[in-house]
Amino acid sequence: MPSFRPEPYLASRAALVDRALDRILKDPGGCPPSLLRAMRYSVFAGGKRLRPVLCMAAAEAVGLRASVALRPACALELVHTYSLIHDDLPALDDDDLRRGRRTNHVVFGEDRAILAGDALLTLAFEVISNPQGLSRERVRNVPGAVRELASQAGFAGMVGGQVSDLEAEGKRPTLARVLSIHRRKTGALLSASVRLPAILQGVPPAVLSALTRYGRSAGLAFQVVDDVLNETGDARTLGKAAGSDKARGKMTYPAAAGLDAARRRVDELTKDAIRALAPLGRRAEPLRGLALHMARRTN
Amino acid sequence: MPSFRPEPYLASRAALVDRALDRILKDPGGCPPSLLRAMRYSVFAGGKRLRPVLCMAAAEAVGLRASVALRPACALELVHTYSLIHDDLPALDDDDLRRGRRTNHVVFGEDRAILAGDALLTLAFEVISNPQGLSRERVRNVPGAVRELASQAGFAGMVGGQVSDLEAEGKRPTLARVLSIHRRKTGALLSASVRLPAILQGVPPAVLSALTRYGRSAGLAFQVVDDVLNETGDARTLGKAAGSDKARGKMTYPAAAGLDAARRRVDELTKDAIRALAPLGRRAEPLRGLALHMARRTN
Repeated sequence: MPSFRPEPYLASRAALVDRALDRILKDPGGCPPSLLRAMRYSVFAGGKRLRPVLCMAAAEAVGLRASVALRPACALELVHTYSLIHDDLPALDDDDLRRGRRTNHVVFGEDRAILAGDALLTLAFEVISNPQGLSRERVRNVPGAVRELASQAGFAGMVGGQVSDLEAEGKRPTLARVLSIHRRKTGALLSASVRLPAILQGVPPAVLSALTRYGRSAGLAFQVVDDVLNETGDARTLGKAAGSDKARGKMTYPAAAGLDAARRRVDELTKDAIRALAPLGRRAEPLRGLALHMARRTN
Repeated sequence: MPSFRPEPYLASRAALVDRALDRILKDPGGCPPSLLRAMRYSVFAGGKRLRPVLCMAAAEAVGLRASVALRPACALELVHTYSLIHDDLPALDDDDLRRGRRTNHVVFGEDRAILAGDALLTLAFEVISNPQGLSRERVRNVPGAVRELASQAGFAGMVGGQVSDLEAEGKRPTLARVLSIHRRKTGALLSASVRLPAILQGVPPAVLSALTRYGRSAGLAFQVVDDVLNETGDARTLGKAAGSDKARGKMTYPAAAGLDAARRRVDELTKDAIRALAPLGRRAEPLRGLALHMARRTN
């Protein structure tokens, strides 16, 4: 893929998403100012916008216009942001720092942080159920997109993975446990990121399957890279304490199988993600490039 | 309304809703058992199912089949249940008892309670986006229903009202503040309860307006009755300490205007709710009866 350069692609798409999120959260009628401040604080906390960018790359791969993919892309980021706010709470991971900034509850208090998370999750469904520029025929596909976001974010997806992760703390890390948690806690929403444009566009089942396989493999690779970086990275690059997973006895791939096996797995998964895209042809170039980029990232 | 008897109506509709909720939460694939226990604990904690019953009565009023209204009705109860779990958390109202039972976080821990709430809110959107028995033509109305639920539950509705309520604690109660909080914190979801079937059915604007006015007036009356009962009821009937609002300096109607004015306001609002239903004719009988019942309730 000599033609695809991930950095400018990520930067330009992330800028579009930032502008769209800013419009959504500019001056939403009826929102108490203090709640809006807490919501905006975490939405604009320097996130890489990976889920929205994957969503826009998948839209390109299935021929859905970028302007139509923007709102589902924003919905994904709103769900991701709420999950970080709630994960950081004292009753959960009790983190004071995220990406080098104070976490939501440290700045706004636990009560506001819980409610800001609730408001962002709810807003995600308002945004995804209100697509713009979708043809009348494809409005029929919107309920399926809402269902996808809800099921991947809910008890069988992200929230369920978070519960399993809590329950696994202190238990012996096994590959089966690690994979089951990673697939739900981070993989599910990354999968939704590439599946949503396909569902809205109403693609043939083979195309949806290809994107599902890409999402599963690239999503898992992403989380294994995260595990590796947590063990080997330095705090300045990570924006949080290195080695914090290990200190907490978290279920990570390196803890279950070692660092070398983790790195090999990332390679295999990335190759599998790229192979999965074969039926989509050249339009899937950005998705291929992003899979490679995610495998090689250093923060 | 000599023909309508609220108790059997409420009991029969609540039983339908209970069965539907039980099916939804029977053995949902991929849900960690401990999370499912925490979700079920609060969903089946003896709630009166008022929002679902209002939804089914509104469905009757607009000619939407009861079997089709059941899933939006369940979604409303899931949202209501999540809001109670989060409101009871130590960082918010710090309540140990609700309806005479230990609150979710007391039984399952704060971390599980936060996540069970998140899972229920997310599930509500999975349920409402997946209606059953809706004609192909009306599937087009589903995104509007999702939007309605999200906007009434979110920053400008229930969550926003909760934030304003937190911020008002200790401030001087004024009618303007009380009304603004009540309209959002409880009124918004009660409004959604009667508007959802109308949106799904695609009724003319005048009918939707009539239901909106009913929802606003009956919803506010409901909350003012709650305020009055909190001040005058006994703990056994309420399932929580009487006078707890006063002790906390909560924004209540009696605190702003006195008990007599509160009771008069309930009467006026109830009459207004019933007047609003005039264009709907006899099919709105259950909604009329429920408005009267809500005004006269003692727990």
